[in-house]
Amino acid sequence: MWAKVLAVAKRRGFIWPAFDIYGGLSGFYDYGPLGAELKRNIMEIWRRYYVLIEGFAEIDSPNLSPEAVFRASGHLDKFEDYMTVCRSCGAAFRADSLVETENADALSADELWDIMRRENIRCPECGGEPSKPEPFNLMFRTTIGPKGKRERTGYLRPETAQAMFMDFQYLYRYFREKLPFGAVQTGKGFRNEISPRQGLLRLREFNMAEAEIFFDPEKKEWGGFERIAGERLRLIPNNGNELEMSAAEAVERGIIKNQALAYFVALTKRFLIAVGIDEKRLRFREHLQDEMAHYADDCWDAEVLLSYGWVELVGIADRTNYDLSRHMEFSGENLRAMRKYPEPKEVEVEEIIPDYRKMGPLFKGNAKKVAEALKAMNPADLHDDVTLEIDGNEYVVPESAYRVEKVRKKVSGEEFIPHVIEPSYGIDRILYAVMEHNYYEIEEDGETYRILRLPASVAPVKAGVFPLMSKDRLNEKAREIYENLRKAGINAFYDDSGSIGRRYARMDEIGTPFCITVDYQSLEDDTVTIRFRDTKEQIRVRGDEVTGKIRDLIERGERATP
Amino acid sequence: MWAKVLAVAKRRGFIWPAFDIYGGLSGFYDYGPLGAELKRNIMEIWRRYYVLIEGFAEIDSPNLSPEAVFRASGHLDKFEDYMTVCRSCGAAFRADSLVETENADALSADELWDIMRRENIRCPECGGEPSKPEPFNLMFRTTIGPKGKRERTGYLRPETAQAMFMDFQYLYRYFREKLPFGAVQTGKGFRNEISPRQGLLRLREFNMAEAEIFFDPEKKEWGGFERIAGERLRLIPNNGNELEMSAAEAVERGIIKNQALAYFVALTKRFLIAVGIDEKRLRFREHLQDEMAHYADDCWDAEVLLSYGWVELVGIADRTNYDLSRHMEFSGENLRAMRKYPEPKEVEVEEIIPDYRKMGPLFKGNAKKVAEALKAMNPADLHDDVTLEIDGNEYVVPESAYRVEKVRKKVSGEEFIPHVIEPSYGIDRILYAVMEHNYYEIEEDGETYRILRLPASVAPVKAGVFPLMSKDRLNEKAREIYENLRKAGINAFYDDSGSIGRRYARMDEIGTPFCITVDYQSLEDDTVTIRFRDTKEQIRVRGDEVTGKIRDLIERGERATP
Repeated sequence: MWAKVLAVAKRRGFIWPAFDIYGGLSGFYDYGPLGAELKRNIMEIWRRYYVLIEGFAEIDSPNLSPEAVFRASGHLDKFEDYMTVCRSCGAAFRADSLVETENADALSADELWDIMRRENIRCPECGGEPSKPEPFNLMFRTTIGPKGKRERTGYLRPETAQAMFMDFQYLYRYFREKLPFGAVQTGKGFRNEISPRQGLLRLREFNMAEAEIFFDPEKKEWGGFERIAGERLRLIPNNGNELEMSAAEAVERGIIKNQALAYFVALTKRFLIAVGIDEKRLRFREHLQDEMAHYADDCWDAEVLLSYGWVELVGIADRTNYDLSRHMEFSGENLRAMRKYPEPKEVEVEEIIPDYRKMGPLFKGNAKKVAEALKAMNPADLHDDVTLEIDGNEYVVPESAYRVEKVRKKVSGEEFIPHVIEPSYGIDRILYAVMEHNYYEIEEDGETYRILRLPASVAPVKAGVFPLMSKDRLNEKAREIYENLRKAGINAFYDDSGSIGRRYARMDEIGTPFCITVDYQSLEDDTVTIRFRDTKEQIRVRGDEVTGKIRDLIERGERATP
Repeated sequence: MWAKVLAVAKRRGFIWPAFDIYGGLSGFYDYGPLGAELKRNIMEIWRRYYVLIEGFAEIDSPNLSPEAVFRASGHLDKFEDYMTVCRSCGAAFRADSLVETENADALSADELWDIMRRENIRCPECGGEPSKPEPFNLMFRTTIGPKGKRERTGYLRPETAQAMFMDFQYLYRYFREKLPFGAVQTGKGFRNEISPRQGLLRLREFNMAEAEIFFDPEKKEWGGFERIAGERLRLIPNNGNELEMSAAEAVERGIIKNQALAYFVALTKRFLIAVGIDEKRLRFREHLQDEMAHYADDCWDAEVLLSYGWVELVGIADRTNYDLSRHMEFSGENLRAMRKYPEPKEVEVEEIIPDYRKMGPLFKGNAKKVAEALKAMNPADLHDDVTLEIDGNEYVVPESAYRVEKVRKKVSGEEFIPHVIEPSYGIDRILYAVMEHNYYEIEEDGETYRILRLPASVAPVKAGVFPLMSKDRLNEKAREIYENLRKAGINAFYDDSGSIGRRYARMDEIGTPFCITVDYQSLEDDTVTIRFRDTKEQIRVRGDEVTGKIRDLIERGERATP
């Protein structure tokens, strides 16, 4: 099936292999005119859900980032696959892809190597002998700035999330220091896959849409929960037993750990269905313990059934305070929020008091930074000498350079590190899944017709506009309708070549929901026909009402929003 | 002035320094919630002009590209600045930035070095001695794929244009093999600036919007020219004499070389004014001969007057057939279009006939590719041995392995390499210029009020919604209006803190054109006030008519479209 979908996608201008005239490069695709439009429409709907309706703040940060970011995020250490290289032909593979074990991607290099030797696994390309698996970091590395002293190592971001953590202070102020609030970012992510395959499912440069919602860890409720409480969810908790129940029930029974996580699971379901995913081929699966990312406390994947098997489209993770804690630790900045007391109270607190007379000579110009980082630590964690890592440098603070004291203080609230829930969407996968779930073949008069039954709101072209014949002023009238649609922001396609039947077929194949034909009757009574893709039903409307009618049809055709 | 604009931009959430918690990195910015929205609105208007109204096809290609692309494009050889490094402090500079000569960026390394020595130029940071300028390639370099045999060198694209040339065959077919047609791409460009300065004007990662319009070189007229023929343009041709005239007159008098180029100059003017650029601070300047990019035949820059001086926002270049020719030469693919004759005719043509018996043994598996590349050459250019570069490898075809023959043929048309006109927009600069051109300070009661008089269509927030007091059901009613606006896709901001005057002032500062207040009268007659930013005029409208009214105001407030 995927071969058929990709063939239509290429022929019609949805997806083209990138750098094709130079032989292509695996893991890279171009979106052609229809694909770019389809992607834009999916993103528009995503923004409507996350930015307009939820009121989250969108930011837009660079793809390139300095190394310090990924030291803090953990990607420098842990964003890697185990690579094996064929000793004969030099082909490289993810070791886990050669091993037929469930959850092979959770195995260590040694475990993989054991299996490879035991089962005498050979190179799939030439039958040669593969090397012992070694870790391979999946970030693309470059250098920023001119050669020499001031050159810095940089990486292309593997996810859009980090900027939202780094900008926490700005965002917290933007939201007037009230939790919970959400930030979103859409854009590119990069992953230097060892051996990318499966079309749009595993790209080296991909499109993401991520939201980071910051919570007081004591309050993981969600204000708008009642809006989605009744949404039915097909769930596979990590015990493996599939269940179906409402979002509210999933929270009550403890299947989904908190209301906030359940809210974004249900919201994800609504979004996916709005863009055209088939509800019957959609489920949510909880990560197994050894499958979870290093930062996550709990994670649910939205998975859809494709011709490739079940594929993850969205991950909804409770990242706890992992990211903010790490960035605090590595930057020395305070990324905490304040929980205000109803009224100020007097408390006894432990406080870390750096001894500046000793810090100064030890750390010179960095003394202030080191002292701040030290103060930001939890006093309970401090004993003996303390090693701090700041901006990539290590500082050892001797026990004699600080003390921990109990002090009584009048405080108006307490600081805490917010927790984060992150819905992370893989847009290219969603786009592909929408195409496959809406792809139909129909046999008619011995010929195969292909139809993409895309929802009107995501269809790249909303209306085909045809003059019955390219003469007798039919074409002028059709052109006028076409131009009015486009001026109103509705993507239309003008076609005057071939029979009307062929023109309908071309529009069906790219998912166009409506076709407008100007015929001889149009010249008499100024009406045109609108033909509906899925029912083939036709109606006549007045020429000057076409734009409004099509706009209504697009809006009406949309599925529920929360 | 720019310092004031950037201060508001940072404080209010338009622009934040990227990686700020790690000390920042010059040449990189984050767009905060308001900046991301402002950028999106500018891009929306750009798309309306170029995609919806002109009917150009949008594509979306990777940021990362393999080396072959930039060997063909010329960036590997020529995308460089001359760098000088201080021998004392190690600071690096663009040599031309240290030299106070007009058009210093057109000087060679030797010329720069002569001036630097003659004028005893020193390091601006420490007074040390700068080194002899050396070329520094401005592309960010990385490697794609796993270490080993199959690893490839890749670069972050310095412009979005190349994919549109590489996809020429796909696009030509998409447009059913008719010229002229246009392709557009918006997205990131990357430039490893030696020493970036000036806020958003010189970034290492920036946002672009480019259109490539493909022409038959014999027909550089433009169908819709009459739509813009009367547009008045302020022009500085490369003789330096400023003129003002209509687009039509500029073409007639040969000031702008062809209709197509003039069309995109005038369209650029209309776009810039629509997004809020001040017409009185906008001009078009033709490039001097030694200033022009290596590929351009003619180029006009849209320049605006900012507090930094005159700054280029858009370049409109006639790239001739440079790009397609180069990609043909380096890939061996045929990127020509066909000019159909009214009826087939018999012609005598020179044809390159490869001798396959000799090519085979010489080039083995590559023989076909080499023969194709050879045949794609102009017979007039062939003599002696021919050196071809294909996919990065050199092939020498001896004179004995081909011949050039005159043959008579019945042909239905002739092939040619299309010419390209390229309007290339720097979006970050446009965004900054829009902010500066619309920034006003007003003294009132001894206080300074700041107003951003953005056009309603680009303003990040369209409407502030305020309950007069946060009680007596005023807040519920205001919330309802706020939510209805957002559900309708109109970005609104809810504010219930501080006096109404302060809330107006906050909205004025971020450019919000309309403010809606729910007061006690609202509870009686269900009306609310709408206050206009620029006139401070207020009107009352019914609560259930607010969304429609605001939508009308936004549309009415927009300036002319072509």
